Amino acid sequence: MPNESLDDTGTMGIIDQWESEVRSYVRSFPCVFDRAEGSRLWDEDGRCYIDFFSGAGALNYGHNHPLLKAPLLRYLERNGITHSLDMATRAKTEFLESFAEIVLEPRGLDFKVQFPGPTGTNAVESALKLARKITGRDSIVSFTNAFHGMTLGSLSVTGNAFKRRGAGVPLGNSACMPFDGYFGTDIDTVEYFDTLLLDQGSGVDLPAAVIVETIQAEGGVRVASSAWLRALAAACHRHDVLLIVDDVQVGCGRTGPFFSFERAGIQPDLVCLSKSLSGMGLPLAVTLIRPELDQWEPGEHNGTFRGHNPAFVTARAALESFWQDEDLSREVVAKGQHVHRFLTELAGKCGIARESVRGLGLIQGLDLENTGLTREVCRRAFESGLILESSGPESTVLKIMPPLLVDTATLEEGLHRLAASVIGALEAGSAETETHA
Amino acid sequence: MPNESLDDTGTMGIIDQWESEVRSYVRSFPCVFDRAEGSRLWDEDGRCYIDFFSGAGALNYGHNHPLLKAPLLRYLERNGITHSLDMATRAKTEFLESFAEIVLEPRGLDFKVQFPGPTGTNAVESALKLARKITGRDSIVSFTNAFHGMTLGSLSVTGNAFKRRGAGVPLGNSACMPFDGYFGTDIDTVEYFDTLLLDQGSGVDLPAAVIVETIQAEGGVRVASSAWLRALAAACHRHDVLLIVDDVQVGCGRTGPFFSFERAGIQPDLVCLSKSLSGMGLPLAVTLIRPELDQWEPGEHNGTFRGHNPAFVTARAALESFWQDEDLSREVVAKGQHVHRFLTELAGKCGIARESVRGLGLIQGLDLENTGLTREVCRRAFESGLILESSGPESTVLKIMPPLLVDTATLEEGLHRLAASVIGALEAGSAETETHA
Amino acid sequence: MPNESLDDTGTMGIIDQWESEVRSYVRSFPCVFDRAEGSRLWDEDGRCYIDFFSGAGALNYGHNHPLLKAPLLRYLERNGITHSLDMATRAKTEFLESFAEIVLEPRGLDFKVQFPGPTGTNAVESALKLARKITGRDSIVSFTNAFHGMTLGSLSVTGNAFKRRGAGVPLGNSACMPFDGYFGTDIDTVEYFDTLLLDQGSGVDLPAAVIVETIQAEGGVRVASSAWLRALAAACHRHDVLLIVDDVQVGCGRTGPFFSFERAGIQPDLVCLSKSLSGMGLPLAVTLIRPELDQWEPGEHNGTFRGHNPAFVTARAALESFWQDEDLSREVVAKGQHVHRFLTELAGKCGIARESVRGLGLIQGLDLENTGLTREVCRRAFESGLILESSGPESTVLKIMPPLLVDTATLEEGLHRLAASVIGALEAGSAETETHA
Amino acid sequence: MPNESLDDTGTMGIIDQWESEVRSYVRSFPCVFDRAEGSRLWDEDGRCYIDFFSGAGALNYGHNHPLLKAPLLRYLERNGITHSLDMATRAKTEFLESFAEIVLEPRGLDFKVQFPGPTGTNAVESALKLARKITGRDSIVSFTNAFHGMTLGSLSVTGNAFKRRGAGVPLGNSACMPFDGYFGTDIDTVEYFDTLLLDQGSGVDLPAAVIVETIQAEGGVRVASSAWLRALAAACHRHDVLLIVDDVQVGCGRTGPFFSFERAGIQPDLVCLSKSLSGMGLPLAVTLIRPELDQWEPGEHNGTFRGHNPAFVTARAALESFWQDEDLSREVVAKGQHVHRFLTELAGKCGIARESVRGLGLIQGLDLENTGLTREVCRRAFESGLILESSGPESTVLKIMPPLLVDTATLEEGLHRLAASVIGALEAGSAETETHA
Repeated sequence: MPNESLDDTGTMGIIDQWESEVRSYVRSFPCVFDRAEGSRLWDEDGRCYIDFFSGAGALNYGHNHPLLKAPLLRYLERNGITHSLDMATRAKTEFLESFAEIVLEPRGLDFKVQFPGPTGTNAVESALKLARKITGRDSIVSFTNAFHGMTLGSLSVTGNAFKRRGAGVPLGNSACMPFDGYFGTDIDTVEYFDTLLLDQGSGVDLPAAVIVETIQAEGGVRVASSAWLRALAAACHRHDVLLIVDDVQVGCGRTGPFFSFERAGIQPDLVCLSKSLSGMGLPLAVTLIRPELDQWEPGEHNGTFRGHNPAFVTARAALESFWQDEDLSREVVAKGQHVHRFLTELAGKCGIARESVRGLGLIQGLDLENTGLTREVCRRAFESGLILESSGPESTVLKIMPPLLVDTATLEEGLHRLAASVIGALEAGSAETETHA
Repeated sequence: MPNESLDDTGTMGIIDQWESEVRSYVRSFPCVFDRAEGSRLWDEDGRCYIDFFSGAGALNYGHNHPLLKAPLLRYLERNGITHSLDMATRAKTEFLESFAEIVLEPRGLDFKVQFPGPTGTNAVESALKLARKITGRDSIVSFTNAFHGMTLGSLSVTGNAFKRRGAGVPLGNSACMPFDGYFGTDIDTVEYFDTLLLDQGSGVDLPAAVIVETIQAEGGVRVASSAWLRALAAACHRHDVLLIVDDVQVGCGRTGPFFSFERAGIQPDLVCLSKSLSGMGLPLAVTLIRPELDQWEPGEHNGTFRGHNPAFVTARAALESFWQDEDLSREVVAKGQHVHRFLTELAGKCGIARESVRGLGLIQGLDLENTGLTREVCRRAFESGLILESSGPESTVLKIMPPLLVDTATLEEGLHRLAASVIGALEAGSAETETHA
Repeated sequence: MPNESLDDTGTMGIIDQWESEVRSYVRSFPCVFDRAEGSRLWDEDGRCYIDFFSGAGALNYGHNHPLLKAPLLRYLERNGITHSLDMATRAKTEFLESFAEIVLEPRGLDFKVQFPGPTGTNAVESALKLARKITGRDSIVSFTNAFHGMTLGSLSVTGNAFKRRGAGVPLGNSACMPFDGYFGTDIDTVEYFDTLLLDQGSGVDLPAAVIVETIQAEGGVRVASSAWLRALAAACHRHDVLLIVDDVQVGCGRTGPFFSFERAGIQPDLVCLSKSLSGMGLPLAVTLIRPELDQWEPGEHNGTFRGHNPAFVTARAALESFWQDEDLSREVVAKGQHVHRFLTELAGKCGIARESVRGLGLIQGLDLENTGLTREVCRRAFESGLILESSGPESTVLKIMPPLLVDTATLEEGLHRLAASVIGALEAGSAETETHA
Repeated sequence: MPNESLDDTGTMGIIDQWESEVRSYVRSFPCVFDRAEGSRLWDEDGRCYIDFFSGAGALNYGHNHPLLKAPLLRYLERNGITHSLDMATRAKTEFLESFAEIVLEPRGLDFKVQFPGPTGTNAVESALKLARKITGRDSIVSFTNAFHGMTLGSLSVTGNAFKRRGAGVPLGNSACMPFDGYFGTDIDTVEYFDTLLLDQGSGVDLPAAVIVETIQAEGGVRVASSAWLRALAAACHRHDVLLIVDDVQVGCGRTGPFFSFERAGIQPDLVCLSKSLSGMGLPLAVTLIRPELDQWEPGEHNGTFRGHNPAFVTARAALESFWQDEDLSREVVAKGQHVHRFLTELAGKCGIARESVRGLGLIQGLDLENTGLTREVCRRAFESGLILESSGPESTVLKIMPPLLVDTATLEEGLHRLAASVIGALEAGSAETETHA
């Protein structure tokens, strides 16, 4: 990997010397970042990068937004409680109040809030446990190319073979069903699922729950249609199976509305939320539970960092700053359409199939499957000062996720660099092919 | 539970209305905390509490220590990167450098550092996965009354039956062995373990690893002797089984030295560290890996909040402030001896067996098993302004964990309140017994 | 269940008093059978029944065939070894010799023979274990509506939900794929399977093996097409996955050729054979293993009744009596076509869809799914002196399995009774409907 | 393995050519057996062997006993039903009647009888399934060095590491406890088990059942004391855990009484019986179920060879011939004492520790652990015309199991050959040691 031929004696050498081989993004972006504001980061040499990655969805409001940073500084200065396990704190009650008033009540959603440990996989683990406890069933149905996390329970519902092998033990108590469109547009994969559950001889055990991402971000930016989501919710209801939406990556406004499932008009039984919930990239996660399903015993699931108060402070500030009205949602939809059009035109210019562009709101993908050039595009983007990542089982899909609040000029500049990287990689690829010919 | 008869219309009512029934500590400490400094917290009514709990080991240096808070504020003010996945940042490389120079090198420990997601259970999950991957074996041996976390992999090596049932599925690929002293002082439980592994008919599969806490904090403050730990390490070595020390709760100086296993002179293959690592209660965790065992593929285990830079900043400040010399270690040992003597005297006064007092450094336990009064003691302590928790499978053991830096006066005042709570509960218990007689 | 209102003081009372509630066929055929010859059984009252069930495929040559019985009596009379574990005996070597010469060699099949315990589920368990051992993989792929046995390994690849729940533990290390035609004739289910294995994000782990019945007998007489079987074998080969054919119920000539997979021209890696292998209904089973896959260690799988010599004697006699030429195969095909035509005409007369008749050779099914009358048909058949059973997840499919050697008159008489039972049940059903109208 | 250098062109060559490598006993006894009577077998060359192995307990009444053979021949001659699934037959009802009258009622045992498939592992699998179904719990506790069978459920409660690895998947839902005497005579292993179940933090899940052999035959002839068995039964009762006795190898009179647990005066909840049940080595097994636990649904566990009528016929004949009075039991006890004394004297002569001799009734063991000569002793025994096997995890224990009905002269001759083989092996061993010295 040429990116790794770093100066071992410099700052990066510390990483090479001391950090485990498991590190990954540092291999794609081989520099030492120092500070960041909004949609831009600077490395220790002062070089500036436009961020089209947003911490894999953890930085929807950009880096260090002043409206979040100010109350955080105030909170720390006055010695507000930092760590509180699951004791009550003022920061926590204020967050809960805002979350109820700004997020849940206006949407007519009735949920109890669990703080399961401050990461997405903790939220998923708690949802799986609760679904199994409530139903007395063992199996969870997930979908092809799903990504739900790296701890053992979450990994058992994650599709990626490479990640699964990392478990070192067989992953059980789960079954994998085809996601929307998996077998082409003609086959209704919910009907397939429904048939298997109806058939008492199918060998597919009645699951405790179905866990689904409305858009599979890690899985290659695959968008479930609203109709499919509704059909899935109906099938779950029919079979008395719980529906868990993992909104860790595409929730908090990434697709426009606060929750990504709002577009389908469904109400899941359990929702997992993390990443951009704290607004500033601080660890925080919640599991939302329909009240009648809140059958936990006190302390049945716990964790040390359930009460990460700085994150409560910024999370509340984010809700109050950005979600009191629908302006942000509208802005995201508009920007998303713009990016989608841009990518479609780019695909057209480059002879890439129209269907290779997919996404909703500010998560957009461009599948370069047939070119084999995704890695090269990302490398060129980085060299041109653009942070851009790929996704999908074979990492062929460029995943475009700028901060939701990105200003127009920065967005345009980023798209410009993206286009240049794609075109450059394609031309170099052709040249190389010709040379070899 | 009388503690819960709270005013639903006040701040606490928000918790009751919106937070899941899974909440626990808030039931023991029914007030809304607001701010904290050192060894003291204040609730929203201005009432002050002495902290003998320290966030279950996450606040070894107390609340909001000025030497940690100052660099954190500076970092945030200058827009240092907050969230970076596992990209390189200046905050991260500086932390790694300090960790290597201050912690690893002086102790002659050779470890690679993995950032597995910022919670203890994430560190445990990554250690279990790696151990299985390296050895190609499935099973992990853990010990009676062990606590390693709530996600599925960690839960399968946790002893508590109530927590285990929460999994909703059978917990497999693990086997439970008796901890030091489990069958009394006459039986060498490592010999037992060794016998089972030697016997090709024992039904105990050769495990990938043994995971052990040197002191079982949640398990009831049970201290493994140094001799037992050495014997365990030797048995693991003999059978080519990896040794994982889960130092999440009793590492970072809780027992005196930085790592709790230093007293035994052993070098584990893998170490899990979290809780007090960031120093200020911010989420952070590492998995330490002997270099030759660092056989991860890039990205084989990942997570969104691996790069929680504010925690890197405070973690480094903690190392530089408190671990450049051995003063803190010595102080902890001395304070620990004092607390131990105090508890022993208290036990004597109250007719409680001498063996009911156990602990090392500033984790000390008083087992009130035969009295049935532990909950009442904690209730009285809280009313007298002392945060005190219990542990053990039946929650009978008072767990005394003040911040390591607690000043003498506060420690004395806390111990005084503790003694009054114990004596008061015992007297009331006797009175009640007499009344009923 | 009206059938069970038996005289508790008679012979049947002994069953009611002493046999576990798990008993099943005795509830459908409530009489005490005494003796049997060829295609007929007599109960203790001397009543005669035609057998269209053949011990669920264990009596392909009928009851007590003289060509099998005679050598068995001779063997027992001269004190031939009865029980020999897996020591060598003359009866065993003679069976092996005949099996090799008459079955394997003429078909160009190269297999080692394992005696895994004398039941089908033992053969399946040994095949699954060997496949996992060889490949180092955990998962086995089976199909919707598969039936492979009741022990834990076999049950985990069996589709029936009622049977699966009987395990009392989650059934893991398996994945269920749609059988041929499961989603209608338009969807190629092997392509589906192939897609999932190719997709590194599908969540379907690369299996050790695929286990398949060429005709699902218990699953409702579902016939895999030869093209589908070839495509499946090719997909397995492509992914380096072993192919196990479970020929327990439809092997030994049931479909015409000795092995049911001969029609497809495929060579499985492992074959499970039992039921009619001994020829006379005596317990016997073999697992056939491609020589290069015979990687068992001595004694790695064992069992007490691997050496059931009376069964070796009759098994050899059956091979020598019926399989020295292709007469029996041709006869079975001809009789099968006759039964198929008969059922098709019957369906036509009764307004039952043509597709409800399915089968190959002398396993034929008539699906009465829409009538709800299957149980009633079987009851009437029994009353008219015909042993007839149903299959399928909801037991809606009449399964017609006379002995392969059934004479024409008996076959006709049986079909006549069958038709009368179907027609009678339909008429009574209509009458009842009218009465209720 | 020198035993295998066989003439490939002879009868044995057929085994080598066609039988799987998994074969085992044929390697210890490299000849082709032909016929057998009582306690003797003859190979195809007419050589005669005394049988001290009895089909691993399947031939308690010797080979081809005339009192069993005669009714079997009559049954077959008159075309009695051979195979009947679980339909009622005269042979079955007569067996049930005899079993109830001769075995159950005189012993005051109240059991329903399940026919689970005709092998021991089938009986064990059905017992495990039923225990899990009834209790709703997953785990089964078994003991160090237990042997319960090779199918996946039975294997998960079997101790032998080599056999367990054959599963190819992790074996779960089970926990292994130390058998009586496992840690020496000072440690009460039932107390250990009891402590773990009482401790809510032990990590040992409350099991559905405990499965135990009263004597571990395969495990090295380890005898549980009656007091230990009673303590175990009491502990099970106290924790509401079912007790399963696997009496497959040491039931049917092997230790004296019909059931091996009679000596302890306990009544198990479930009993597994097979091997010598048919009396003549024909496949047969039953699971005995306390009536209130007979909670099977019809057909919830099934199998093709549940109705093996020839075995019913001989099983009934065995009960009526040998169990109408207590003569056989007394005879077995007397012979057992004789063999035990003989082995003790032999051990004395050979300088082998007294404790190396263990057993009850006609299962007696001589542990040659320290000599490393067990295999050589068996080889010499075979050469002298004695069939003798070893057991234990390292196969160091000579297992002496003659037919219960062995006549005095044959027993003495067998013991003489045994002694000669032991002494001869020891002498040769010493000689070899001297030569090397």
